[in-house]
Amino acid sequence: MTDNAVAADTAVSAEQAEREQDLVDRVVASFDQAPDARLRYVLQTLVKHAHAFVREVRLTEEEWNAAIRFLTDVGHITTDWRQEFVLLSDVLGISMQTIAVNNEAYKDATEATVFGPFFVNDAPHVELGGDIGGGAPGEPCWVEGSVRDTEGNPIPHARIEVWEADDEGLYDVQHGDGQVYGRAHLFSDENGEYRFWALTPTPYPIPNDGPVGKLLDTVGRTPYRASHLHFMVAAEGYRTLVTHIFVRGDERLATDSVFGVKESLIKDFIRHDGTAPTPDGRVIEGTWSDVRFDIVLAPQPTRATPA
Amino acid sequence: MTDNAVAADTAVSAEQAEREQDLVDRVVASFDQAPDARLRYVLQTLVKHAHAFVREVRLTEEEWNAAIRFLTDVGHITTDWRQEFVLLSDVLGISMQTIAVNNEAYKDATEATVFGPFFVNDAPHVELGGDIGGGAPGEPCWVEGSVRDTEGNPIPHARIEVWEADDEGLYDVQHGDGQVYGRAHLFSDENGEYRFWALTPTPYPIPNDGPVGKLLDTVGRTPYRASHLHFMVAAEGYRTLVTHIFVRGDERLATDSVFGVKESLIKDFIRHDGTAPTPDGRVIEGTWSDVRFDIVLAPQPTRATPA
Repeated sequence: MTDNAVAADTAVSAEQAEREQDLVDRVVASFDQAPDARLRYVLQTLVKHAHAFVREVRLTEEEWNAAIRFLTDVGHITTDWRQEFVLLSDVLGISMQTIAVNNEAYKDATEATVFGPFFVNDAPHVELGGDIGGGAPGEPCWVEGSVRDTEGNPIPHARIEVWEADDEGLYDVQHGDGQVYGRAHLFSDENGEYRFWALTPTPYPIPNDGPVGKLLDTVGRTPYRASHLHFMVAAEGYRTLVTHIFVRGDERLATDSVFGVKESLIKDFIRHDGTAPTPDGRVIEGTWSDVRFDIVLAPQPTRATPA
Repeated sequence: MTDNAVAADTAVSAEQAEREQDLVDRVVASFDQAPDARLRYVLQTLVKHAHAFVREVRLTEEEWNAAIRFLTDVGHITTDWRQEFVLLSDVLGISMQTIAVNNEAYKDATEATVFGPFFVNDAPHVELGGDIGGGAPGEPCWVEGSVRDTEGNPIPHARIEVWEADDEGLYDVQHGDGQVYGRAHLFSDENGEYRFWALTPTPYPIPNDGPVGKLLDTVGRTPYRASHLHFMVAAEGYRTLVTHIFVRGDERLATDSVFGVKESLIKDFIRHDGTAPTPDGRVIEGTWSDVRFDIVLAPQPTRATPA
């Protein structure tokens, strides 16, 4: 198939172009009386981009029908527990772009990434140096670092939520047994430092037995996420940071199915064997890893001025 | 609320703009290996427009969440009988734009408009001059016209499907009683002429008890369609025409909820009282109307060259 057969022939007649633009103008104008100015602006802008897409690709009626069927399938598989519209947003990078525009680059503040569907409120508290694993299977991983502001000042008592999948690639909530593991919250110390035991992250696929999984398969994309450990870090006066750290050398970094990977979030997870003592002086049978993640929080408000 | 507070501040830093564009590039590239070249092109173009929208309006995370909830509601109300995604496409003018790009202006060929959800196959055949009403309540309307090509030559034996709502604003299939009325097919005669009895069209709302109806309400738009009579006209060697005719003077022409109205499709429905004989020589108690609709079919193929 040549490019000419694929890309639409956009050389439409002046009369045709006028008909199409007139329609766009009428649809935009239909929202002119919307009382909420922001909603009006968002919907009118959505209309402009949606129509530009239909006109640019010269969407066929067959393709329009296929899109309606696809969205219907996405709607029907979605439940309180399975959010296929979020997955669709994720695999189109729309979730990540929304994160990007709401977490603008600010000096050396740590970059944000996708929140994901597996955070839960009220995860247990662990003391500094404690274990968030809660008995989940996997290789032990020592995580330590600091929480600072963009001037380098330590932020004490920052609340750090961490959560991750076990070595089967499943979060506790996916096991459905009511057990809580692989998640906890803790607080940075007086010097803004933190440390805890977790599991070395492993890769796993996003749910791929629905229409979004089928779409990925059709276009030759993997459903796998790169291995990661979730963080949410909050402190009064600072922009709450939702992010992950990724494992340098993970072969799935370049093809993360939700585009969550940022270069600055890829960290060196150093693997040790059981003969080396751990940072907190234990000796562990088998391998373990450690990683350092220094966190920098941007100030409030959310819409910070660029550096 | 001022425009400044509504429209997003697009003056992001160069670093921020680069982060956002880099994400777009990565998402587009993720489809590079899709085996179907047309699907690849359509999805990559969709990604570009969707990201441009998110970046332009600086979509908030709250708005993203509201969009996910809205689409979830649209999915959950959709059944085999109630297609809320089609309604959504309709009220955003996307259905109409898809019709537009697939029915390019060709000389004086009659313009197309939306198909709508109420066509059914196997509607009864009526002879020329027969009644498609089938006993549905409403004011009788005599419809006549010709079917010709763009050179003015008559097209005999063209298949003309017609369907419409009754004076309660409901199609037969909406009554759920299994009766068939307000629809039929007939054929143009040797001279390309046709004529039949129908009902004078009346306005009705699209189904508005779901999320799309709620959206229209929120933005101050009416769910009503302008009064219309549906046509689908097919003849071998010609582009099948799906269209409506509208009633000149109908106050809902300017606010048709699915943007189906085109100036060329607004016709003069002349009202008569019962003392005037009808075109086929009857005397009817009460009022009746008549209308002329001359149809011009474009030649196949669908992607005709502009005149």
